[in-house]
Amino acid sequence: MFLLILQQFMQFELTTEIVNKIKSAIKDNNLVYLNTELLQLYPQDIAQIINQLDVEEARFAYDLLDEEAGPKVLAEMDEDRREQLLASYSTKEIAEQLDNMNSDDAADVIAELPQNIQEEVLSQIEDIEQASDIAELIQFEEGTAGSLMAKELISVYSFETVNQCIEEIRKQTDNTEMMYAIYVVDNNERLLGVLPLKKLIISHPLARVEEIYDPDLRYVKTSATSLEVVEIMQKYDLVALPVIDQLGRLVGRIMIDDVVDVIKETADENIARMSGLSDDVDSNDNLWVISRARIPWLLVGMCGGIVGSRIIGAYEEHIKIHPEMAFFIPLIGATGGNVGVQSSAIIVQGLANNTLIGSNIPQKLLKELGVGLLNGIICSGLIFAYAYVIEDFRLAATVSIALLTVVLCASFLGTFVPLTMNRFKINPALATGPFVTTLNDIIGITIYFLTGRLLYSIF
Amino acid sequence: MFLLILQQFMQFELTTEIVNKIKSAIKDNNLVYLNTELLQLYPQDIAQIINQLDVEEARFAYDLLDEEAGPKVLAEMDEDRREQLLASYSTKEIAEQLDNMNSDDAADVIAELPQNIQEEVLSQIEDIEQASDIAELIQFEEGTAGSLMAKELISVYSFETVNQCIEEIRKQTDNTEMMYAIYVVDNNERLLGVLPLKKLIISHPLARVEEIYDPDLRYVKTSATSLEVVEIMQKYDLVALPVIDQLGRLVGRIMIDDVVDVIKETADENIARMSGLSDDVDSNDNLWVISRARIPWLLVGMCGGIVGSRIIGAYEEHIKIHPEMAFFIPLIGATGGNVGVQSSAIIVQGLANNTLIGSNIPQKLLKELGVGLLNGIICSGLIFAYAYVIEDFRLAATVSIALLTVVLCASFLGTFVPLTMNRFKINPALATGPFVTTLNDIIGITIYFLTGRLLYSIF
Repeated sequence: MFLLILQQFMQFELTTEIVNKIKSAIKDNNLVYLNTELLQLYPQDIAQIINQLDVEEARFAYDLLDEEAGPKVLAEMDEDRREQLLASYSTKEIAEQLDNMNSDDAADVIAELPQNIQEEVLSQIEDIEQASDIAELIQFEEGTAGSLMAKELISVYSFETVNQCIEEIRKQTDNTEMMYAIYVVDNNERLLGVLPLKKLIISHPLARVEEIYDPDLRYVKTSATSLEVVEIMQKYDLVALPVIDQLGRLVGRIMIDDVVDVIKETADENIARMSGLSDDVDSNDNLWVISRARIPWLLVGMCGGIVGSRIIGAYEEHIKIHPEMAFFIPLIGATGGNVGVQSSAIIVQGLANNTLIGSNIPQKLLKELGVGLLNGIICSGLIFAYAYVIEDFRLAATVSIALLTVVLCASFLGTFVPLTMNRFKINPALATGPFVTTLNDIIGITIYFLTGRLLYSIF
Repeated sequence: MFLLILQQFMQFELTTEIVNKIKSAIKDNNLVYLNTELLQLYPQDIAQIINQLDVEEARFAYDLLDEEAGPKVLAEMDEDRREQLLASYSTKEIAEQLDNMNSDDAADVIAELPQNIQEEVLSQIEDIEQASDIAELIQFEEGTAGSLMAKELISVYSFETVNQCIEEIRKQTDNTEMMYAIYVVDNNERLLGVLPLKKLIISHPLARVEEIYDPDLRYVKTSATSLEVVEIMQKYDLVALPVIDQLGRLVGRIMIDDVVDVIKETADENIARMSGLSDDVDSNDNLWVISRARIPWLLVGMCGGIVGSRIIGAYEEHIKIHPEMAFFIPLIGATGGNVGVQSSAIIVQGLANNTLIGSNIPQKLLKELGVGLLNGIICSGLIFAYAYVIEDFRLAATVSIALLTVVLCASFLGTFVPLTMNRFKINPALATGPFVTTLNDIIGITIYFLTGRLLYSIF
């Protein structure tokens, strides 16, 4: 018995080999193979495989799935893939799939469909309650608690007895579904609290819910932002969070797994912004989409480069006499850029994780300048020694003084810019990318040549 | 009734003002204020405030907490803060706090204590079972499933009846605790499956567990890595994951909220690596720690800068005659760096999110070169026009040809380097940081001056 179970759950790992085998089984119409090697997997694993197939292959594989697995696999597929797959089905067929799907997943799927098809699909969903749930959910703006929630939940009235509750639960859930919380509402459907399962199990069958429920629970309104939802659920370690409307009525619940997705997406978006990608692209998007996401910040960087060229251009005569000044242009630019990125990354993360709250900003800047001074002295000391040995004192002094100044400037800007952006409600992750690098490049060159001209005129 | 609840849960927002008020209340020994404004909050909120206090203030506030709230607040505090706070307590007092803490939190706290104190604290924990649970948990290596799990779980034997189960549950949990899963084990404590709560509630009191339990469940061994745990829980949308030992015995469970923390930490670490921070520092760490985390990559960048200076140095005579060549050094370097970071960020994210699996690498490289070619043509076209107007044809041709080549090289390296690093099990996020930027800087300068010398000798 036990061995049987251990074999049953082997962590599935998608490989090119598996995908190719499935592809050729589809080509050969090898239903026996597909039945044992594809259909026995968990819906999430099937979805991962189908994501890698062509549209026709995907349709072939999808049609093999039964009534229960189909909607689950559909819910787990990549958005783009799902859109392509659904395009080959009639509205009636799509409606059938949505009928057996969780309301939040169904709403996500339907929201991706072309506007003119959405209503048609909705009108063909047989279960009227499901159709109205979906219609309600697609109203909510993306990024709100309303758009994250699902309608499936278990609620009981405060005036019911434990026995009546158990009867209700029997009716409200099917056998397979997990049950994380039983919400208690008054006769106007307004949220009162939560009934711990343990209490339900151990209380007297005739005890009333109002005597045993727990009124201390956390909830959000439908209009709360998804970041607020993440914050509350993460901070208070919640698995499910009830959602209420303006009148305090219980209208849905958000599960932690949906919030995990939001956390991942937010982190991905921050990395994209910090890397100078203006849209959230992934490497499977097509060439034009990827190009378009990248070109804006490249152009910003180029403009910075052009400004830099004008600044250096102003010192053309100086370079003619002292071409060695040009040698250290990349070093000054790169170090300034690196320091700026380091400083701003710490601030961006502090802002994202809420660890900066309660600390004051002048103090942060001061500390950052302290770090800059320390690292700046180390770096410029080393470069002084190097340049003095290789070139001469004048160049060594120029490079090391400029480097120290650049490091301090970059430390200051790397701290100040994201904090300021955050104050003006602009995503501070933008500051860690090409923006702060470009700015530091320009400032670095300016400082370097100013120092150079000054020192060369003295010595 | 309802209004009362709505007032009860106001999303707590930590502000400098609140912290200052608490600080002065502590100074004035204003217990009435502290009782209403601090002790009434949730443990997580209290921990946030205590994190911002001095050690003495923190100790004052902590001592006000009752037996139940104290351990919860301690578990939620920042590691550094907690260490400082606990240093002022005796081992006996620490043991008392750990006695009422969840086993996983207690193990985390004890692992932070100095080695010589750990045993002393363990030996003074009154509840022998709790002490042995903690002793077991601190054995597991960080980053494994064993180190993430807690010992608190509900398990029943397969031969028990529903009635006996309910009696067991009554014994095994206290009233406040949430109950997410009831695990079923055989008489050797080996994991057999899970008993859905719903089934427990609606089944006949004399039905046996073995007739109603669900053998289909996912689990991990104690030796699984935390990233495997994250993958399984995230993919299959699990709220709790049972952990078994080498013999298949149920030894603990991992909750999703601990996994959420792992996800956040992993994302933070990636951002740190991409930004050239060699340790995971936050802005509250002290000056030396922050400096030390930053200096290694700054030095790498400086070495790159020195190599760059040698390359430019080789063209000293050329620069003397054509100082305008120096103007565009920053532009070439910056654009190469930006493209490299963009390319590698997409790959790093694809690797982190497992979306690259099943796609082949030559194809990725080809696509990336396509994107590079497209963006490179746009950028070099623009810069040609600019340089032609401002300077002359030779410089315009040099800059634009070099830029296109640099963009292509950077696209290639930005894709190739992280993929290669990943193959050799090195965190590819390292590649997106100063490493790829420095490499691109050097390559960019080399290409630029090679092109320059070639074109200037022709025209």
